[in-house]
Amino acid sequence: MNQSSHTRVLVIGAGLIGTSIALALKAQENEVFLSDSDSDALQTGLVKSGASSWTEQATVDLIVVATPPSSVADVMRSAAHQHPNAVVTDVASVKGAIFAALKDEPESVLRRIVGGHPMAGREVSGARAAQSNLFVDRPWVITRTSHTSDAACTAVYELATALGAVPIERSIEEHDQAVALISHTPQVVASVLAGRLVDAPQSQVDLAGQGIRDTIRIAGSDANLWSDILASNSVEVSRQVAAVAISLTEVADALEKGDKQAVIDILTLGSTGQKKLPGKHGERIQEDAVVVVRLDDKPGELARLFAAAAQADVNLEDVRIDHSLGRMTGLVELSVARDVASKLEHSLITQGFVVIV
Amino acid sequence: MNQSSHTRVLVIGAGLIGTSIALALKAQENEVFLSDSDSDALQTGLVKSGASSWTEQATVDLIVVATPPSSVADVMRSAAHQHPNAVVTDVASVKGAIFAALKDEPESVLRRIVGGHPMAGREVSGARAAQSNLFVDRPWVITRTSHTSDAACTAVYELATALGAVPIERSIEEHDQAVALISHTPQVVASVLAGRLVDAPQSQVDLAGQGIRDTIRIAGSDANLWSDILASNSVEVSRQVAAVAISLTEVADALEKGDKQAVIDILTLGSTGQKKLPGKHGERIQEDAVVVVRLDDKPGELARLFAAAAQADVNLEDVRIDHSLGRMTGLVELSVARDVASKLEHSLITQGFVVIV
Repeated sequence: MNQSSHTRVLVIGAGLIGTSIALALKAQENEVFLSDSDSDALQTGLVKSGASSWTEQATVDLIVVATPPSSVADVMRSAAHQHPNAVVTDVASVKGAIFAALKDEPESVLRRIVGGHPMAGREVSGARAAQSNLFVDRPWVITRTSHTSDAACTAVYELATALGAVPIERSIEEHDQAVALISHTPQVVASVLAGRLVDAPQSQVDLAGQGIRDTIRIAGSDANLWSDILASNSVEVSRQVAAVAISLTEVADALEKGDKQAVIDILTLGSTGQKKLPGKHGERIQEDAVVVVRLDDKPGELARLFAAAAQADVNLEDVRIDHSLGRMTGLVELSVARDVASKLEHSLITQGFVVIV
Repeated sequence: MNQSSHTRVLVIGAGLIGTSIALALKAQENEVFLSDSDSDALQTGLVKSGASSWTEQATVDLIVVATPPSSVADVMRSAAHQHPNAVVTDVASVKGAIFAALKDEPESVLRRIVGGHPMAGREVSGARAAQSNLFVDRPWVITRTSHTSDAACTAVYELATALGAVPIERSIEEHDQAVALISHTPQVVASVLAGRLVDAPQSQVDLAGQGIRDTIRIAGSDANLWSDILASNSVEVSRQVAAVAISLTEVADALEKGDKQAVIDILTLGSTGQKKLPGKHGERIQEDAVVVVRLDDKPGELARLFAAAAQADVNLEDVRIDHSLGRMTGLVELSVARDVASKLEHSLITQGFVVIV
């Protein structure tokens, strides 16, 4: 952004994403305006970001629409008409419905509209939680149509890059299919599975270990927000969810019939799918080795463990702590590159830690 | 076990669980015998545990059957007949089929048979991975029938307690329903969801974040082992899996019809169910506050963070590291008791950490 000609930016919507964008751009000495139909939210966003309140006299080069998903198309349309020279982009997590709603706009509008989706959602919301580094190293998906000009696309690439994100171009269809697959369907599946616990006796639920805990973690998300998101991508999500339901019915039938091979096939497919997930820095997950350590549950034990790992000069790729009923000790799983695992184990054992082979 | 009269124990099956039991009992100076039909596995188990190889002349008070699930009933039956005074227990993860297979045994056998399920499974297996503290603070479910004598039950309670586990009595039906709900069904659901990734373009999978990563983590488990486990609890699991499939079909239909309230209801139910999970030490999860810190991805940063937390004299209840595509920094979530969260935040900020509000 610093090098580009777009240094005057209007952010519409003073929520977490909008205020974070305003804050980060302002820190880079751009001229930033912020607006919101809710004057309290706006006030918080202005204080937090240091942006200026929007005045009709100002001219801007780039408009970022960060309003709730259902209003994005309307806000983009009117912004594009009011600012006939500005590039208009958004941050909504689903793209198809927005672009469908805008498809009859004149070419003079369509060429300036670029879809954007910074994949930096957090379980917090609101301007107060805004953070200038919210987007650092996060994917920022950019979608364009056949009408979108290269110049408009470049402006959004530069925005994403200025905020430290990784711009990734996808078609609208590809993007919406991807989020249905990797985000929206898992949300539905986790919620439905977690729902099974509601009528179960607590004496059964109390035996739960780390497996189900991980599987249903995202079921704790906000139901109203998520029903909006799912509705805006309903075609793709219902297709995926229905496919999961069919596979589950097949498993239930195979179990009833005692068809072991069918069950093995479905489990094997799942294992194959799981390995397709990108690991840290994009490499495959299974390249890490896991070193398991049992810790006493008292203050300072984790610090002592990580100090010992640092002393061994080993970088931890991931850390998980396993909890289950009545456990007063912590089972800590340290993921490290395969070639340093035995070095780490040796070092930890030397320092008196209980390493589980 | 030290105080009890049962100090001569035979463990049948030199896998992870059997060898860990032998190792722990041996460390407490009990007389422990180990046997396995596979002489290589037995040799490893004997070396690892320090137990004695089983000889027909020996007399034992307690027999722990730790063979693969499909052979447990037969091994328990013949052990009970060969040792007319010994209590016979097992460690299998499903109980109904085993007790059904034994139901026609004479009263003299039935009163000495106790079901056991130490819930200490790890993603590793075999005698080499045995650990004397594998069961510490883990639930050890004990199941009895109307025929089981109190003395036999007491022997297994004492075994579990001697190994540091938490003995929990459940009926056979309750136990098998519980594991179907909290372990077997989540495994099937995670596997089926992960299977959806197999045919998806890598360009879509590469956008995956932490949500789906957690949801399908257990899909990486061993397909053959799990098809055995699922088959042994097929009635309960197929019932649960079919119910999940029906709910998913309802969500797919609601999305297609645009019935937002139905979607909200199902998501809300999931959120309610998720909150029923026991937290660490059995309290509810949501009582923890989460402090989020952004770290540079370089050796020693986690150590520096945990040292800072220890310096603030705050005990960490849980730690999660969030990874996604292209992230060169780590977003670390520290769960702490609510009343110390702001103390921790303040301390971390003072020490130069980037805390995300």
